[in-house]
Amino acid sequence: MPGKIKVAQFGLGPIGIETLKLAASKPWAEVVGGVDIDPAKVGRDLSEITGLRNLRGRSIYPSVDELLAEVKTQLIFHTAVSRFKAAYPQLEAIARRGINVVSSCEELVFPALREPKLAVRLDRVCRSSGARIVGTGVNPGFVMDVLPLCFSMVSRLVRAVHVERVVDASTRREPLQRKIGSGMRPAEFRNLLRAGRAGHAGLKESLALLAQGLGWKLKNIVETGDAIVAGCGIRTRYLRVRKGQTCGLHQRAQGRINGRIRLTLDLKMYLGATDPHDAIQIEGDPPLKIIVQGGVAGDQATVAALVNTAPRLLRARPGLLLPSDLPLPSFA
Amino acid sequence: MPGKIKVAQFGLGPIGIETLKLAASKPWAEVVGGVDIDPAKVGRDLSEITGLRNLRGRSIYPSVDELLAEVKTQLIFHTAVSRFKAAYPQLEAIARRGINVVSSCEELVFPALREPKLAVRLDRVCRSSGARIVGTGVNPGFVMDVLPLCFSMVSRLVRAVHVERVVDASTRREPLQRKIGSGMRPAEFRNLLRAGRAGHAGLKESLALLAQGLGWKLKNIVETGDAIVAGCGIRTRYLRVRKGQTCGLHQRAQGRINGRIRLTLDLKMYLGATDPHDAIQIEGDPPLKIIVQGGVAGDQATVAALVNTAPRLLRARPGLLLPSDLPLPSFA
Repeated sequence: MPGKIKVAQFGLGPIGIETLKLAASKPWAEVVGGVDIDPAKVGRDLSEITGLRNLRGRSIYPSVDELLAEVKTQLIFHTAVSRFKAAYPQLEAIARRGINVVSSCEELVFPALREPKLAVRLDRVCRSSGARIVGTGVNPGFVMDVLPLCFSMVSRLVRAVHVERVVDASTRREPLQRKIGSGMRPAEFRNLLRAGRAGHAGLKESLALLAQGLGWKLKNIVETGDAIVAGCGIRTRYLRVRKGQTCGLHQRAQGRINGRIRLTLDLKMYLGATDPHDAIQIEGDPPLKIIVQGGVAGDQATVAALVNTAPRLLRARPGLLLPSDLPLPSFA
Repeated sequence: MPGKIKVAQFGLGPIGIETLKLAASKPWAEVVGGVDIDPAKVGRDLSEITGLRNLRGRSIYPSVDELLAEVKTQLIFHTAVSRFKAAYPQLEAIARRGINVVSSCEELVFPALREPKLAVRLDRVCRSSGARIVGTGVNPGFVMDVLPLCFSMVSRLVRAVHVERVVDASTRREPLQRKIGSGMRPAEFRNLLRAGRAGHAGLKESLALLAQGLGWKLKNIVETGDAIVAGCGIRTRYLRVRKGQTCGLHQRAQGRINGRIRLTLDLKMYLGATDPHDAIQIEGDPPLKIIVQGGVAGDQATVAALVNTAPRLLRARPGLLLPSDLPLPSFA
């Protein structure tokens, strides 16, 4: 199949499998294999775990090296971890071979924020091998960073940007319903949030990406997190929350310049949220207010963002790139 | 001023002057001069016509050649004509010298639609001289093409895209209020629309850009135009419309694939429009519906789009480019 992009999937959890299936449906992609460390998956056929007959004969390998020893690969979809530090060895092993990566790793949307040294090192590896790496997704990677940046193209002046995202977690899959603290005592969940051991990853990264795209230098980004407490009993397909227990989270990142709040990213994810939506407000000239009715759906849209980014990534220069380094986002 | 982009303004009508003023406010730009064929303007100082003292000593030249003979220029903002054919000789003269152009010429947003041969020729000139040319603005250039494309990044599947723009023309400047047929007999205005001698330029180009970005091949694009008739007397700052006269226009472009409507761009611009807004609907997976409350304001936003595009254009490859060939749009 000449001209097609030869892609493989690293990480075969639910998002990885959906990514693989969507990629397999694209006329521009040829799926060549998968990578997962789970011994229960290694060696199995991709057609088995996806239900797609046209993936028959494509295997799951225990490592990137073993994948690459068998099949030529141009690009790997990486859906494995949220922390850049944890992703680093995986990404370096791929980049060293000159293979491109589109990753769902949340911190990779702005890797220099928490790990500036690792970001420089990975960028160097990419430049010398010719590989390109980018992190993307819906949030971070779209709703709270790429989209407001895109809107700011029609701004003569930007004084402040405020983004609000309200997600009804009861429509989402089980891991997300657990992640937001459902059923925990509020004090317990607040402690986990404060310790950075729970909550949505990537909010600060979105804010850093937005600030950089606007040309703003922020001294620091302040993030706060709180439990949302159920006012009545809630029952979902997966779990049950009693009145007074945690039913979701409220996270907020803010950036100031000269003491004034210039950027606010406000995220509420909770069971039974009324009026889920995304709202972007640009204070400036002209003032702009955008509403995404119902909000951009999480998992489907994340998978779409990963797959749609692949052809655009190949048109960019080698390096550890930001979403804003790529050509105009679009369906592919 | 090392490192600044040396910019000049071609066409010193109201949009050109606003573009120049906004460019002059940017730390990354240095305004070096202007070009206009109006003998009443040639030779005058840019500080006079803009009221900006820091443009003192910057002149208005009668031609690009005379501008370039005097001052080094890297990029020209071109705000002169709507038709690509009319813009061609102006653009070629600039491109031949290796100078980059950001233009408000509506047809330039997708120049190959009406003038494929001229588009190929201008692209060749650009590639051999190293110049980059792009057309941009709010509409065409953003609301009905770039923005829906950007949204489609989070689509697993796109079945159809519908964009609706409703503009209250009574808030806009006089030429626009005239352009939409205000005060004309509806039959007369309909004849002008049908003959292509009135109406909004660039709707078909937006649709062509959107189709190309989605990877869709449309056989043809159908555009219709109608007069909107005043149901009662209307008075604006500039003019008066009696009941039964034209108070605006309704234009629509549609693209079909296999007989099914896949793209619709629907534009209403009329005096006293209630609920002005932009709405983008993506039929697909996930379904998406986006509302820009009040709509993206026309002239201010067009000027912003022109100026904000300049630094991104310089990061693109040489050629006659589409807005979708440039990096992620943003404020600059």
